[in-house]
Amino acid sequence: MKDFAFTGGRPDPFTFPTEALIEASAKALRDLGGSLVNYPGDNGYRGLRELASMRFERREGVPLPVDNISLTSGSMQALDLVLSTFIEPGDTILTEELTYSGTLGIMRHLKANIVGIPMDYVDGMNVDALDARLKELKAQGIRPKLIYTTANHQNPTAAILTLERRERLLELANTYDTLIVEDDCYGDIDFVPNPTPDALFKLDDSNRVIFIATFSKILGAGVRQGYFVARQPYYDAIHENRWDGGTSALASAIVAEFFKNQLDEHLAVTNAAVGAKCRAVTETLEKNVADLCSWTQPRGGLFLWITLPETTDMEKLVELAGKHNAGFSEGRVFHYRSDPIKCIRLAYAYCHVDNIPEGITYLCEAIRAAQVESIDIAAD
Amino acid sequence: MKDFAFTGGRPDPFTFPTEALIEASAKALRDLGGSLVNYPGDNGYRGLRELASMRFERREGVPLPVDNISLTSGSMQALDLVLSTFIEPGDTILTEELTYSGTLGIMRHLKANIVGIPMDYVDGMNVDALDARLKELKAQGIRPKLIYTTANHQNPTAAILTLERRERLLELANTYDTLIVEDDCYGDIDFVPNPTPDALFKLDDSNRVIFIATFSKILGAGVRQGYFVARQPYYDAIHENRWDGGTSALASAIVAEFFKNQLDEHLAVTNAAVGAKCRAVTETLEKNVADLCSWTQPRGGLFLWITLPETTDMEKLVELAGKHNAGFSEGRVFHYRSDPIKCIRLAYAYCHVDNIPEGITYLCEAIRAAQVESIDIAAD
Repeated sequence: MKDFAFTGGRPDPFTFPTEALIEASAKALRDLGGSLVNYPGDNGYRGLRELASMRFERREGVPLPVDNISLTSGSMQALDLVLSTFIEPGDTILTEELTYSGTLGIMRHLKANIVGIPMDYVDGMNVDALDARLKELKAQGIRPKLIYTTANHQNPTAAILTLERRERLLELANTYDTLIVEDDCYGDIDFVPNPTPDALFKLDDSNRVIFIATFSKILGAGVRQGYFVARQPYYDAIHENRWDGGTSALASAIVAEFFKNQLDEHLAVTNAAVGAKCRAVTETLEKNVADLCSWTQPRGGLFLWITLPETTDMEKLVELAGKHNAGFSEGRVFHYRSDPIKCIRLAYAYCHVDNIPEGITYLCEAIRAAQVESIDIAAD
Repeated sequence: MKDFAFTGGRPDPFTFPTEALIEASAKALRDLGGSLVNYPGDNGYRGLRELASMRFERREGVPLPVDNISLTSGSMQALDLVLSTFIEPGDTILTEELTYSGTLGIMRHLKANIVGIPMDYVDGMNVDALDARLKELKAQGIRPKLIYTTANHQNPTAAILTLERRERLLELANTYDTLIVEDDCYGDIDFVPNPTPDALFKLDDSNRVIFIATFSKILGAGVRQGYFVARQPYYDAIHENRWDGGTSALASAIVAEFFKNQLDEHLAVTNAAVGAKCRAVTETLEKNVADLCSWTQPRGGLFLWITLPETTDMEKLVELAGKHNAGFSEGRVFHYRSDPIKCIRLAYAYCHVDNIPEGITYLCEAIRAAQVESIDIAAD
C-alpha cells in the first residue's frame, strides 16, 4: 500500500542534492583533513557560521554577526539550549496559541507556564491581545521571561507576521522588559518572491531578540545543522549551559561547502518543488471538501492548516484516513494547552507530488465520513 | 615558533584517514540520498549503532544491544544527558579523585556533591576506600546516585581498573543500590595486546551499568559521534531528557561506512602512531627529569600523568613552558575539588612525533627552572 505521509516537518526528498553533497564532502574533507581531530568549539565550525551570516544577508540585506552565531543539532537543540538557559520552573512564556509541538514539549519539560496568545492564520500573533495579556500579567506581578514566535511561515498555520505587528511586538518586549525568541526555521522556503518582512532580529535595536534558524528545513533534518544567534550577555549565558562539545564539524563543513556556491540555486529548485506540492494539496482540497472545510494558503514553509467542521469525530478521522495510509497531524498537539480543536496540519513536502491528489482525496473522503450525523448535533 | 601542544584529548592528526573518509562519504550519501530529509530519531542512525555493537563484540566477545544504544554528540553529550537525568542539585556522585575536567564541569553545573575516591595510577580506583566511603555515606543516610569511572586508560592518569576491582565495584554498586557510569571513551586505544579487562557493562548482571563510548578518540573529536548504552528503564528515562532531534545522520553514516570494513586496520595504524608518541615522551622525560619527577606508563589512551616535586612553582612552570609553546594541563583541573596538586597531564597524540623530543625537553627545562630554592622550603 502506498504511504501518503503528510506528517513531520521534512523537506522534499526528491530534490535532495546527493551528487552535489558528495562533491562537497570530498572538498570539505580534503580541506580539513587531520584538523578534524580537534573539537569544533562550543560555537562550531566557522565556515558554516559565515555561511549562516551570508544567508541572512541575502534575505535581510545585513549579515549576522559571525561571532554571535552558535551551531547546534538542528533548531531543536538551539531551542532547548535557549529555553533552558532562561526558564526556571514556573516561569511564564508567551507564544502563539498554536505553535510547534516540539517547542511545547521543551517548554513543558522545563515546567514553564505557557500562555497562548490569539493569532490569525494569515498575519500571525494578535499583538493587541499580546498587549492586553502582558498588562494583565504585569498587574499580577508577573514578568514573562520570553515571547516565542515563528514569524515566517508559521508552524502549523503558515501565517507570516506582518511588519507592523513585528514593530509592535518589539515595542511591547521593550515596554514589558522581556526577550523575544524568533524561530526562523522555515525562513527562505518561499513560494512567492519575498513574502516575509524584515526579521525581528534585524529590526531589534534594544537587544531583545534571540534568533534561531536551521539548514534542516531547506536541506534535510538528518544533517542536524541549526544555529542560534544572540548578542551578549545572552550568547555567553547560553554557552554556560552547553556541554556537548560542539556540533559535528564534519557535517557542518559539508553543508557549508555545498551551500557556499549553491544556496540560491538549491532554494530555487527545492522551493519550486515544495510549492508545487502545496498547490497540489490545495487544489485537491478545493475539489473535494470546499463545502466542509477551510484551509490556509501558504506563501511558503512546509505546512497547511485545515479547519474542519465542528461535527468532525477526530478519532474516526484518524482511523479512516489511516486505512489508506493518509497521515496527518492532529490540531490539538499544536495547541498550547492541548485543546481538542477540530483542526489538522498537513506537511506537504515529503510525499511525491504525483501521489498527492490520491492521498489528499483519501483524506477528504475520511473527513466527510468522519462527520457526526447532523441530527445528533441538533439533539444536543 | 613551533607549537608543542600537549593539551586536549585529541587523537593523532597524521593518521586521520582523509581519503578513506571521502570514499565513505560518497558511498554513505549515495546509499542514503533523499532519506536524509528524515530526522535521525532520538537514538540515531541505525548503521552506526550496529557498528558500535560490533566494535564492543570485537573487544569484549559479546555485542552491545543495538536498541539500547543512543548516538550523541561525542561522549560529552552522552555524559550530559546521563548525568542530568539522574542528578538533582545536592545529589552525591562518587568518582576517582582525579578525573576528566569536562565531567567535573558537568557535575558542578548540575550542583552535584562530588566525592573523590582515592586511586592509584596503575590499577585505578581504590575499591576498599570506595567501600569505606559508601559505608560512611550510608551512615549519614546518603545514597549516592551514581559512581562515575573511566575504567580503561583513565583520564588523566592512564590507569586501568583491574578485573578484581571491577568485580568488587559491581558488588558494591549492588550492595549500596547505586548505578555505575562507565566512561569508555579511551577504550580501544591500546599500545599492547588486550591491556584492558572485561567492561563493567559486560560483567554487570544486575542492570547497574550505563556505558558511554565514542568514535571521537579513535578518529576525530570534530566528527562528534559518541554514544551511551543503557538498559531499561534507564534508556527511556534518559531519552525523556533529550530534546535535540537526534545526532547528525550524515556524520553518523560516514563514520559507520568508514569503520565497517576498516576498524581493525585503522586502530592498528593510529594506535601504533600514538604509542610511538607516548614512548617519545617517556624517553625524553627519562633523559631529563628522572631525578625530579615520576610519571605513569600508559598501556594505551591519550594521557600521561607527571608527579612533580612539591617544590614546583606551578605559575612559574606555566610561564616558562609557555615561552616555548610547550602546552600541558595543570593537575588541579582534574582534581574533584580542584586541589592545587603538583601534577600535570600531557596529551601526547596531537604533536608531531618528530617534535616531541624538543617540546618535552623545553618542558623538562621549565620544570627544573620552576623549582623553588630548597633553602626557602627549609625555612618554612
